[in-house]
Amino acid sequence: MADPIEFWFDFSSPYAYFAQAKIDDIGARHGRETIWRPFLLGAVFKITGMPPLVEVPMKGEYCLEDWPRLARFQHLPWTMPDPFPIATIAAARAFYWLDETDPAKAKSFAQACFDTYFGQGIQIGKPDEVAAVAEGIGVDGAALLEAIQQPEIKDKLRLNVEAAVEKQIFGSPMIIVDGERFWGSDRIWMVKKWLQSGGW
Amino acid sequence: MADPIEFWFDFSSPYAYFAQAKIDDIGARHGRETIWRPFLLGAVFKITGMPPLVEVPMKGEYCLEDWPRLARFQHLPWTMPDPFPIATIAAARAFYWLDETDPAKAKSFAQACFDTYFGQGIQIGKPDEVAAVAEGIGVDGAALLEAIQQPEIKDKLRLNVEAAVEKQIFGSPMIIVDGERFWGSDRIWMVKKWLQSGGW
Repeated sequence: MADPIEFWFDFSSPYAYFAQAKIDDIGARHGRETIWRPFLLGAVFKITGMPPLVEVPMKGEYCLEDWPRLARFQHLPWTMPDPFPIATIAAARAFYWLDETDPAKAKSFAQACFDTYFGQGIQIGKPDEVAAVAEGIGVDGAALLEAIQQPEIKDKLRLNVEAAVEKQIFGSPMIIVDGERFWGSDRIWMVKKWLQSGGW
Repeated sequence: MADPIEFWFDFSSPYAYFAQAKIDDIGARHGRETIWRPFLLGAVFKITGMPPLVEVPMKGEYCLEDWPRLARFQHLPWTMPDPFPIATIAAARAFYWLDETDPAKAKSFAQACFDTYFGQGIQIGKPDEVAAVAEGIGVDGAALLEAIQQPEIKDKLRLNVEAAVEKQIFGSPMIIVDGERFWGSDRIWMVKKWLQSGGW
Protein backbone atom coordinates (compact mmCIF):
# COMPACT_ATOMS: atom_id res chain seq x y z
CA MET A 1 0.00 0.00 0.00
CA ALA A 2 1.24 3.45 -0.88
CA ASP A 3 2.21 5.94 1.82
CA PRO A 4 -0.65 7.29 3.88
CA ILE A 5 -2.07 10.78 3.42
CA GLU A 6 -1.34 13.07 6.36
CA PHE A 7 -4.17 15.43 7.27
CA TRP A 8 -2.97 18.24 9.56
CA PHE A 9 -5.56 20.58 11.02
CA ASP A 10 -6.63 22.86 13.83
CA PHE A 11 -10.08 22.19 15.27
CA SER A 12 -10.88 25.91 14.97
CA SER A 13 -10.19 26.05 11.21
CA PRO A 14 -13.24 26.38 8.93
CA TYR A 15 -11.24 25.25 5.92
CA ALA A 16 -10.26 22.12 7.85
CA TYR A 17 -13.97 21.52 8.43
CA PHE A 18 -14.57 21.56 4.68
CA ALA A 19 -11.58 19.33 3.94
CA GLN A 20 -12.20 16.76 6.70
CA ALA A 21 -15.58 15.97 5.19
CA LYS A 22 -13.85 14.70 2.04
CA ILE A 23 -10.34 13.55 2.83
CA ASP A 24 -11.06 9.96 3.90
CA ASP A 25 -13.19 9.28 0.80
CA ILE A 26 -10.44 10.64 -1.41
CA GLY A 27 -7.86 8.47 0.32
CA ALA A 28 -10.04 5.37 0.08
CA ARG A 29 -10.64 5.93 -3.63
CA HIS A 30 -6.89 5.79 -4.19
CA GLY A 31 -6.05 3.03 -1.73
CA ARG A 32 -4.46 5.40 0.75
CA GLU A 33 -4.89 5.44 4.47
CA THR A 34 -5.40 8.91 5.98
CA ILE A 35 -3.72 9.87 9.21
CA TRP A 36 -5.32 12.79 11.07
CA ARG A 37 -3.03 15.09 13.04
CA PRO A 38 -4.45 18.04 14.96
CA PHE A 39 -2.01 20.83 15.80
CA LEU A 40 -2.32 24.36 17.20
CA LEU A 41 -2.46 27.15 14.64
CA GLY A 42 -1.62 29.67 17.35
CA ALA A 43 1.80 28.08 17.74
CA VAL A 44 2.66 28.42 14.04
CA PHE A 45 1.15 31.92 13.81
CA LYS A 46 3.76 32.92 16.39
CA ILE A 47 6.40 31.90 13.86
CA THR A 48 4.77 33.27 10.72
CA GLY A 49 3.51 36.45 12.36
CA MET A 50 0.13 35.90 10.68
CA PRO A 51 -3.03 37.03 12.45
CA PRO A 52 -6.20 34.89 12.50
CA LEU A 53 -8.07 35.23 9.17
CA VAL A 54 -11.04 37.13 10.51
CA GLU A 55 -8.76 39.81 11.93
CA VAL A 56 -7.39 40.71 8.49
CA PRO A 57 -9.27 43.68 6.98
CA MET A 58 -11.22 42.75 3.82
CA LYS A 59 -9.92 39.15 3.87
CA GLY A 60 -11.82 38.49 7.07
CA GLU A 61 -15.07 39.72 5.53
CA TYR A 62 -14.42 37.62 2.43
CA CYS A 63 -14.03 34.52 4.58
CA LEU A 64 -17.30 35.21 6.36
CA GLU A 65 -18.98 35.02 2.93
CA ASP A 66 -16.81 32.20 1.67
CA TRP A 67 -17.52 29.73 4.50
CA PRO A 68 -21.32 29.57 4.10
CA ARG A 69 -20.81 29.46 0.31
CA LEU A 70 -18.50 26.46 0.67
CA ALA A 71 -20.95 24.84 3.08
CA ARG A 72 -23.81 25.25 0.59
CA PHE A 73 -21.60 23.85 -2.16
CA GLN A 74 -20.58 20.79 -0.12
CA HIS A 75 -24.07 20.34 1.37
CA LEU A 76 -22.64 20.62 4.87
CA PRO A 77 -24.41 22.28 7.78
CA TRP A 78 -22.94 25.65 8.74
CA THR A 79 -23.41 27.86 11.78
CA MET A 80 -20.82 30.56 12.38
CA PRO A 81 -19.64 29.90 15.94
CA ASP A 82 -19.16 32.74 18.39
CA PRO A 83 -16.57 33.02 19.87
CA PHE A 84 -14.37 32.22 16.89
CA PRO A 85 -11.53 31.36 16.61
CA ILE A 86 -10.93 29.48 19.86
CA ALA A 87 -8.10 27.67 21.64
CA THR A 88 -8.34 24.01 20.72
CA ILE A 89 -5.78 22.52 23.08
CA ALA A 90 -8.35 20.42 25.03
CA ALA A 91 -9.84 18.94 21.84
CA ALA A 92 -6.39 18.22 20.40
CA ARG A 93 -5.24 16.50 23.60
CA ALA A 94 -8.43 14.45 23.70
CA PHE A 95 -7.80 13.41 20.09
CA TYR A 96 -4.29 12.13 20.87
CA TRP A 97 -5.55 10.30 23.95
CA LEU A 98 -8.16 8.45 21.88
CA ASP A 99 -5.68 7.95 19.05
CA GLU A 100 -3.35 5.94 21.32
CA THR A 101 -5.79 3.07 21.58
CA ASP A 102 -8.26 3.57 18.74
CA PRO A 103 -7.37 5.82 15.77
CA ALA A 104 -10.80 5.25 14.17
CA LYS A 105 -12.48 6.48 17.36
CA ALA A 106 -10.17 9.49 17.45
CA LYS A 107 -11.23 10.31 13.89
CA SER A 108 -14.92 9.98 14.77
CA PHE A 109 -14.30 12.28 17.71
CA ALA A 110 -12.62 14.85 15.45
CA GLN A 111 -15.52 14.68 13.00
CA ALA A 112 -17.96 15.16 15.87
CA CYS A 113 -15.98 18.19 17.08
CA PHE A 114 -16.10 19.77 13.62
CA ASP A 115 -19.80 19.10 13.26
CA THR A 116 -20.48 20.50 16.73
CA TYR A 117 -18.45 23.67 16.29
CA PHE A 118 -19.06 24.60 12.65
CA GLY A 119 -22.17 22.59 11.83
CA GLN A 120 -24.12 23.48 14.96
CA GLY A 121 -22.20 26.50 16.23
CA ILE A 122 -21.74 24.91 19.67
CA GLN A 123 -18.51 25.67 21.51
CA ILE A 124 -15.76 23.03 21.83
CA GLY A 125 -13.03 25.06 23.53
CA LYS A 126 -13.41 24.08 27.17
CA PRO A 127 -12.59 20.63 28.56
CA ASP A 128 -16.20 19.96 29.62
CA GLU A 129 -17.43 20.95 26.15
CA VAL A 130 -14.93 18.53 24.62
CA ALA A 131 -16.05 15.81 27.02
CA ALA A 132 -19.67 16.38 26.00
CA VAL A 133 -18.78 15.88 22.33
CA ALA A 134 -16.86 12.71 23.19
CA GLU A 135 -19.76 11.33 25.22
CA GLY A 136 -21.93 11.77 22.16
CA ILE A 137 -19.87 9.11 20.41
CA GLY A 138 -19.72 6.77 23.38
CA VAL A 139 -16.48 7.89 25.05
CA ASP A 140 -16.29 8.08 28.85
CA GLY A 141 -16.25 11.84 29.49
CA ALA A 142 -14.80 11.59 33.00
CA ALA A 143 -11.94 9.41 31.75
CA LEU A 144 -11.28 11.94 28.98
CA LEU A 145 -11.16 14.86 31.41
CA GLU A 146 -8.63 13.01 33.52
CA ALA A 147 -6.58 11.85 30.54
CA ILE A 148 -6.08 15.30 29.03
CA GLN A 149 -4.44 16.41 32.28
CA GLN A 150 -1.80 13.68 32.07
CA PRO A 151 1.77 14.74 31.18
CA GLU A 152 2.06 11.96 28.55
CA ILE A 153 -0.95 13.31 26.65
CA LYS A 154 0.23 16.90 26.96
CA ASP A 155 3.60 15.78 25.63
CA LYS A 156 2.01 13.97 22.75
CA LEU A 157 0.28 17.13 21.54
CA ARG A 158 3.41 19.20 22.12
CA LEU A 159 5.48 16.78 20.04
CA ASN A 160 2.92 16.88 17.25
CA VAL A 161 2.90 20.67 17.23
CA GLU A 162 6.71 20.55 17.01
CA ALA A 163 6.42 18.05 14.17
CA ALA A 164 4.01 20.38 12.38
CA VAL A 165 6.50 23.24 12.62
CA GLU A 166 9.27 20.90 11.46
CA LYS A 167 7.17 19.99 8.42
CA GLN A 168 6.59 23.71 7.76
CA ILE A 169 2.87 23.45 8.33
CA PHE A 170 1.93 27.12 8.48
CA GLY A 171 -1.81 26.83 7.88
CA SER A 172 -4.81 24.57 8.27
CA PRO A 173 -5.62 22.24 6.71
CA MET A 174 -2.33 20.99 5.30
CA ILE A 175 -2.47 17.73 3.40
CA ILE A 176 0.77 15.86 2.81
CA VAL A 177 0.94 13.28 0.03
CA ASP A 178 4.19 11.67 -1.06
CA GLY A 179 6.12 14.37 0.79
CA GLU A 180 4.25 17.16 -1.06
CA ARG A 181 2.39 19.77 0.98
CA PHE A 182 -0.99 20.96 -0.24
CA TRP A 183 -2.33 23.88 1.74
CA GLY A 184 -6.01 24.61 2.12
CA SER A 185 -9.32 23.01 1.31
CA ASP A 186 -8.97 24.93 -1.99
CA ARG A 187 -6.34 22.41 -2.96
CA ILE A 188 -8.42 19.26 -2.62
CA TRP A 189 -8.72 19.25 -6.44
CA MET A 190 -4.93 19.20 -6.67
CA VAL A 191 -4.60 16.38 -4.14
CA LYS A 192 -7.05 14.37 -6.28
CA LYS A 193 -5.05 15.07 -9.46
CA TRP A 194 -1.85 14.13 -7.68
CA LEU A 195 -3.30 10.83 -6.51
CA GLN A 196 -4.81 10.07 -9.93
CA SER A 197 -1.64 10.83 -11.89
CA GLY A 198 1.03 9.80 -9.41
CA GLY A 199 2.43 13.34 -9.41
CA TRP A 200 3.96 15.58 -12.04
CA MET B 1 -25.34 37.81 -22.76
CA ALA B 2 -24.77 37.29 -19.07
CA ASP B 3 -22.64 39.71 -17.07
CA PRO B 4 -18.95 39.69 -17.88
CA ILE B 5 -16.36 38.05 -15.64
CA GLU B 6 -14.06 40.57 -13.95
CA PHE B 7 -10.45 39.46 -13.65
CA TRP B 8 -8.53 41.62 -11.15
CA PHE B 9 -4.78 41.10 -10.87
CA ASP B 10 -1.38 42.55 -10.10
CA PHE B 11 1.30 41.96 -12.75
CA SER B 12 3.69 40.75 -10.04
CA SER B 13 1.34 38.01 -8.80
CA PRO B 14 2.34 34.42 -9.65
CA TYR B 15 -1.16 33.16 -8.91
CA ALA B 16 -2.50 35.73 -11.40
CA TYR B 17 -0.07 34.26 -13.95
CA PHE B 18 -1.61 30.83 -13.46
CA ALA B 19 -5.18 32.15 -13.61
CA GLN B 20 -4.75 34.45 -16.63
CA ALA B 21 -3.72 31.47 -18.74
CA LYS B 22 -7.19 29.98 -18.24
CA ILE B 23 -9.73 32.69 -17.54
CA ASP B 24 -10.64 33.67 -21.09
CA ASP B 25 -11.22 30.05 -22.12
CA ILE B 26 -13.45 29.52 -19.12
CA GLY B 27 -15.41 32.66 -19.92
CA ALA B 28 -15.78 31.69 -23.58
CA ARG B 29 -17.02 28.22 -22.66
CA HIS B 30 -19.87 29.80 -20.71
CA GLY B 31 -20.64 32.66 -23.07
CA ARG B 32 -19.11 35.26 -20.77
CA GLU B 33 -16.85 38.13 -21.73
CA THR B 34 -13.85 38.62 -19.44
CA ILE B 35 -12.76 42.09 -18.42
CA TRP B 36 -9.16 42.36 -17.21
CA ARG B 37 -8.39 44.91 -14.51
CA PRO B 38 -4.85 45.32 -13.19
CA PHE B 39 -4.49 46.96 -9.79
CA LEU B 40 -1.66 47.48 -7.31
CA LEU B 41 -1.38 44.89 -4.55
CA GLY B 42 0.86 47.25 -2.58
CA ALA B 43 -2.05 49.65 -2.19
CA VAL B 44 -4.35 47.00 -0.72
CA PHE B 45 -1.60 45.50 1.45
CA LYS B 46 -1.42 48.91 3.13
CA ILE B 47 -5.05 48.40 4.18
CA THR B 48 -4.86 44.71 5.09
CA GLY B 49 -1.45 44.94 6.74
CA MET B 50 -0.39 41.81 4.86
CA PRO B 51 3.24 41.40 3.81
CA PRO B 52 4.18 40.02 0.37
CA LEU B 53 3.87 36.20 0.34
CA VAL B 54 7.57 35.44 0.10
CA GLU B 55 8.25 37.48 3.24
CA VAL B 56 6.04 35.25 5.40
CA PRO B 57 8.10 32.57 7.19
CA MET B 58 7.25 29.02 6.01
CA LYS B 59 4.47 30.26 3.73
CA GLY B 60 7.03 31.98 1.52
CA GLU B 61 9.01 28.76 1.16
CA TYR B 62 5.83 26.84 0.39
CA CYS B 63 5.03 29.27 -2.42
CA LEU B 64 8.48 28.88 -3.92
CA GLU B 65 7.70 25.15 -4.25
CA ASP B 66 4.07 25.67 -5.20
CA TRP B 67 4.67 27.96 -8.18
CA PRO B 68 6.87 25.60 -10.23
CA ARG B 69 4.52 22.75 -9.27
CA LEU B 70 1.55 24.70 -10.63
CA ALA B 71 3.54 25.58 -13.76
CA ARG B 72 4.34 21.92 -14.39
CA PHE B 73 0.70 21.04 -13.83
CA GLN B 74 -0.58 23.69 -16.26
CA HIS B 75 2.25 23.09 -18.76
CA LEU B 76 3.29 26.72 -18.50
CA PRO B 77 6.88 27.95 -18.63
CA TRP B 78 8.24 29.08 -15.26
CA THR B 79 11.33 31.05 -14.30
CA MET B 80 11.40 32.57 -10.84
CA PRO B 81 12.13 36.24 -11.48
CA ASP B 82 14.63 38.14 -9.38
CA PRO B 83 13.84 40.76 -8.12
CA PHE B 84 10.42 39.61 -7.01
CA PRO B 85 7.93 41.02 -6.18
CA ILE B 86 8.19 44.30 -8.09
CA ALA B 87 6.28 47.55 -8.48
CA THR B 88 3.96 47.17 -11.46
CA ILE B 89 2.71 50.71 -11.83
CA ALA B 90 4.26 51.23 -15.30
CA ALA B 91 2.79 47.98 -16.66
CA ALA B 92 -0.62 48.75 -15.18
CA ARG B 93 -0.65 52.27 -16.63
CA ALA B 94 0.39 50.91 -20.03
CA PHE B 95 -2.46 48.41 -19.82
CA TYR B 96 -5.05 51.13 -19.20
CA TRP B 97 -3.64 53.25 -22.00
CA LEU B 98 -3.99 50.36 -24.48
CA ASP B 99 -7.37 49.45 -23.03
CA GLU B 100 -8.80 52.86 -23.94
CA THR B 101 -8.62 52.14 -27.63
CA ASP B 102 -8.20 48.38 -27.95
CA PRO B 103 -9.13 46.10 -25.01
CA ALA B 104 -8.00 43.00 -26.95
CA LYS B 105 -4.58 44.57 -27.45
CA ALA B 106 -4.41 45.45 -23.76
CA LYS B 107 -5.13 41.82 -22.91
CA SER B 108 -2.42 40.61 -25.31
CA PHE B 109 -0.04 43.05 -23.67
CA ALA B 110 -0.92 41.75 -20.21
CA GLN B 111 -0.41 38.16 -21.36
CA ALA B 112 2.98 39.14 -22.82
CA CYS B 113 3.95 40.81 -19.52
CA PHE B 114 3.08 37.66 -17.56
CA ASP B 115 4.97 35.44 -19.99
CA THR B 116 7.99 37.75 -19.88
CA TYR B 117 8.13 38.05 -16.11
CA PHE B 118 7.15 34.58 -14.91
CA GLY B 119 7.68 32.48 -18.05
CA GLN B 120 11.08 33.89 -18.94
CA GLY B 121 12.12 35.57 -15.68
CA ILE B 122 12.73 38.90 -17.47
CA GLN B 123 11.97 42.08 -15.53
CA ILE B 124 8.91 44.20 -16.35
CA GLY B 125 9.08 46.80 -13.59
CA LYS B 126 10.71 49.75 -15.34
CA PRO B 127 9.02 51.81 -18.05
CA ASP B 128 11.58 50.83 -20.70
CA GLU B 129 11.13 47.15 -19.81
CA VAL B 130 7.38 47.58 -20.20
CA ALA B 131 7.89 49.34 -23.54
CA ALA B 132 10.05 46.45 -24.75
CA VAL B 133 7.28 43.95 -23.93
CA ALA B 134 4.75 46.14 -25.75
CA GLU B 135 6.97 46.46 -28.81
CA GLY B 136 7.06 42.66 -28.96
CA ILE B 137 3.32 42.71 -29.73
CA GLY B 138 3.52 45.58 -32.20
CA VAL B 139 2.87 48.56 -29.92
CA ASP B 140 4.82 51.81 -30.43
CA GLY B 141 7.18 51.83 -27.43
CA ALA B 142 7.91 55.57 -27.59
CA ALA B 143 4.20 56.39 -27.65
CA LEU B 144 3.67 54.11 -24.65
CA LEU B 145 6.44 55.78 -22.65
CA GLU B 146 4.87 59.16 -23.30
CA ALA B 147 1.33 57.95 -22.58
CA ILE B 148 2.08 56.49 -19.16
CA GLN B 149 3.31 59.91 -18.03
CA GLN B 150 0.00 61.57 -18.87
CA PRO B 151 -2.27 62.59 -15.96
CA GLU B 152 -5.34 60.99 -17.60
CA ILE B 153 -3.63 57.59 -17.65
CA LYS B 154 -2.27 57.96 -14.12
CA ASP B 155 -5.80 58.85 -13.01
CA LYS B 156 -7.25 55.85 -14.77
CA LEU B 157 -5.02 53.48 -12.82
CA ARG B 158 -5.65 55.37 -9.60
CA LEU B 159 -9.41 55.10 -10.09
CA ASN B 160 -9.14 51.38 -10.79
CA VAL B 161 -7.08 50.84 -7.64
CA GLU B 162 -9.75 52.73 -5.72
CA ALA B 163 -12.41 50.57 -7.37
CA ALA B 164 -10.48 47.47 -6.32
CA VAL B 165 -10.45 48.61 -2.70
CA GLU B 166 -14.16 49.48 -2.96
CA LYS B 167 -14.84 45.95 -4.20
CA GLN B 168 -12.79 44.56 -1.27
CA ILE B 169 -10.19 43.06 -3.55
CA PHE B 170 -7.48 42.18 -1.04
CA GLY B 171 -5.48 39.70 -3.10
CA SER B 172 -4.52 38.71 -6.62
CA PRO B 173 -6.09 37.27 -8.65
CA MET B 174 -9.66 38.06 -7.69
CA ILE B 175 -12.33 36.85 -10.06
CA ILE B 176 -15.79 38.39 -9.81
CA VAL B 177 -18.75 36.52 -11.29
CA ASP B 178 -22.35 37.61 -10.72
CA GLY B 179 -21.16 39.80 -7.85
CA GLU B 180 -19.39 36.87 -6.13
CA ARG B 181 -15.68 37.21 -5.35
CA PHE B 182 -13.44 34.21 -5.88
CA TRP B 183 -9.94 34.72 -4.56
CA GLY B 184 -6.92 32.92 -5.96
CA SER B 185 -6.03 30.68 -8.85
CA ASP B 186 -6.93 27.88 -6.39
CA ARG B 187 -10.55 28.84 -6.92
CA ILE B 188 -10.72 28.44 -10.68
CA TRP B 189 -12.50 25.12 -10.05
CA MET B 190 -15.15 26.99 -8.07
CA VAL B 191 -15.59 29.64 -10.76
CA LYS B 192 -16.17 26.82 -13.25
CA LYS B 193 -18.75 25.16 -10.99
CA TRP B 194 -20.46 28.51 -10.44
CA LEU B 195 -20.70 29.13 -14.20
CA GLN B 196 -21.89 25.59 -14.89
CA SER B 197 -24.58 25.57 -12.22
CA GLY B 198 -25.61 29.23 -12.18
CA GLY B 199 -24.59 29.51 -8.54
CA TRP B 200 -25.74 27.85 -5.34
